Amino acid sequence: MSKLVIVGTVAFDAIETPFGKTDKILGGAATYIGLSASNFNVDGAIVSIVGGDFPKEDISMLEEKGMNVEGLEIVPNGKTFFWSGKYRNDMNSRDTLITELNVLADFNPVVPKSYQDSEVVMLGNLHPMVQMGVINQMKNPKLVVLDTMNFWMDCALEELKQVIAKVDVITINDEEARQLSGEYSLVTGAKKIMEMGPKYVVIKKGEHGALLFHKDEIFFAPALPLAEVFDPTGAGDTFAGGFTGYLAKTGDFSFENMKTALIHGSALASFCVEKFGTERMIDLSKKEVHQRLKQFKSLTQFDIELT
Amino acid sequence: MSKLVIVGTVAFDAIETPFGKTDKILGGAATYIGLSASNFNVDGAIVSIVGGDFPKEDISMLEEKGMNVEGLEIVPNGKTFFWSGKYRNDMNSRDTLITELNVLADFNPVVPKSYQDSEVVMLGNLHPMVQMGVINQMKNPKLVVLDTMNFWMDCALEELKQVIAKVDVITINDEEARQLSGEYSLVTGAKKIMEMGPKYVVIKKGEHGALLFHKDEIFFAPALPLAEVFDPTGAGDTFAGGFTGYLAKTGDFSFENMKTALIHGSALASFCVEKFGTERMIDLSKKEVHQRLKQFKSLTQFDIELT
Repeated sequence: MSKLVIVGTVAFDAIETPFGKTDKILGGAATYIGLSASNFNVDGAIVSIVGGDFPKEDISMLEEKGMNVEGLEIVPNGKTFFWSGKYRNDMNSRDTLITELNVLADFNPVVPKSYQDSEVVMLGNLHPMVQMGVINQMKNPKLVVLDTMNFWMDCALEELKQVIAKVDVITINDEEARQLSGEYSLVTGAKKIMEMGPKYVVIKKGEHGALLFHKDEIFFAPALPLAEVFDPTGAGDTFAGGFTGYLAKTGDFSFENMKTALIHGSALASFCVEKFGTERMIDLSKKEVHQRLKQFKSLTQFDIELT
Repeated sequence: MSKLVIVGTVAFDAIETPFGKTDKILGGAATYIGLSASNFNVDGAIVSIVGGDFPKEDISMLEEKGMNVEGLEIVPNGKTFFWSGKYRNDMNSRDTLITELNVLADFNPVVPKSYQDSEVVMLGNLHPMVQMGVINQMKNPKLVVLDTMNFWMDCALEELKQVIAKVDVITINDEEARQLSGEYSLVTGAKKIMEMGPKYVVIKKGEHGALLFHKDEIFFAPALPLAEVFDPTGAGDTFAGGFTGYLAKTGDFSFENMKTALIHGSALASFCVEKFGTERMIDLSKKEVHQRLKQFKSLTQFDIELT
């Protein structure tokens, strides 16, 4: 069992989908990553920042899920990061309505001493220099995974490239991979991104699954075909949390084991979208996860005899 | 080994992609289906129609691939069906520039006597009533597979529904599945389409792979991630030809065996798009196919122990 450091936002979200809308509810990349990784009973620490308005029960909930919260800074007279968005009818695109950085504007992440020797680091979507700040505090990590998005490619590309050069795995979506590499083909794009530093590239394609690239090898994890996607918020982070959680649990960072990790990530993400926000992830049972992994097996496994 | 009847167009295509353009070259659904199915050395018959302008060498080529051409009617003073199209830069959408029905306008398919007892029937994209004409000539087919497209949903929906009610498998793309079912979710849409008759629904998602539905079960076959898609023309037909060719060869029409058939279809389609028109399919070697099936295995197979 390896230790896992998770850095990312802990936030309030207000979400509108064709199925309904929420008031301010619990959200944030680190929240989703932590909830997802907790399915593997990993020894994880969340490094983030919230305001005095953040509910104590939510912090307790994360602790009960096995997350260390020493690195979750609370600014008593500050306000928690707030994001509000509205999904279009196809659920594949969304418009940001409100972004209030609040305490996040001055976030200076501090990794707790007892987690600076963690083997696995999951850098959730944040300013690249904040992500770099976490890398610099780690003693000898075995696996650093970076999530980012097009926003940082637009406004902090040089800093982003510096972080990308330092990580083992990068996870981005298909459009971001195209933007970052300047290549339309994801195969060619992934090759170019590997030249920037990471040995592994994960390209997330939403309902179309995810691709894992390493050298000349490719692995594909489908998304579970669902009758209804209720709220896609946090699916990518849940995917990353399942991926890194499984890798931290097994301590095996080989390409072969990453395939299995990707399937775990995809299975967990398939739950996330079934309800608004973190709701589905909080009450998820081991039996349900087990059942869904079986579905992934029957969804993808086939029998061809090849000599 | 089962016999296979293939009905569809045998045509001339003129294709323009971002990579170049062709003059009139060999094309047509039945051509692609037949070439693809021939990889399984099946006893297949092509039922179609061409004009006196159709090259004898192309007919000979199909015969050399093991296709019976008794049912390929030649109208000496007629002209072969001609289609011309141009792909957009993303290669996922195309505009039809020219459609000249020519001899196809009066096509009255005749299944050769010696193939009326075939176990497998592949109805390539054509007017639903032409497809029905073929079904009516078959004595006791074990598996009838229907391909169709949105064009017939727009202009011959009632006739199409009559054919759909009579087939075992329908293959359509994602947008067509949505149009036919009136459902955005492919899972819900496939259920509705199964209620129209077919026990199996195959939804083709192009570069995003294909889904096979049967009762409450789903199987997913990815498309091979390619550095370059040169010309998508015929990929769907090649997919269908690999699917039905493998099923005809094995004579096993179970859901489990259809999974493997789908992978064969996807592997063969991945070759089709590498060159213009039928070029890649005509010179395809057993060794290349074998190698690609191995790639599909490493692309999709993972190791999770589940009790």
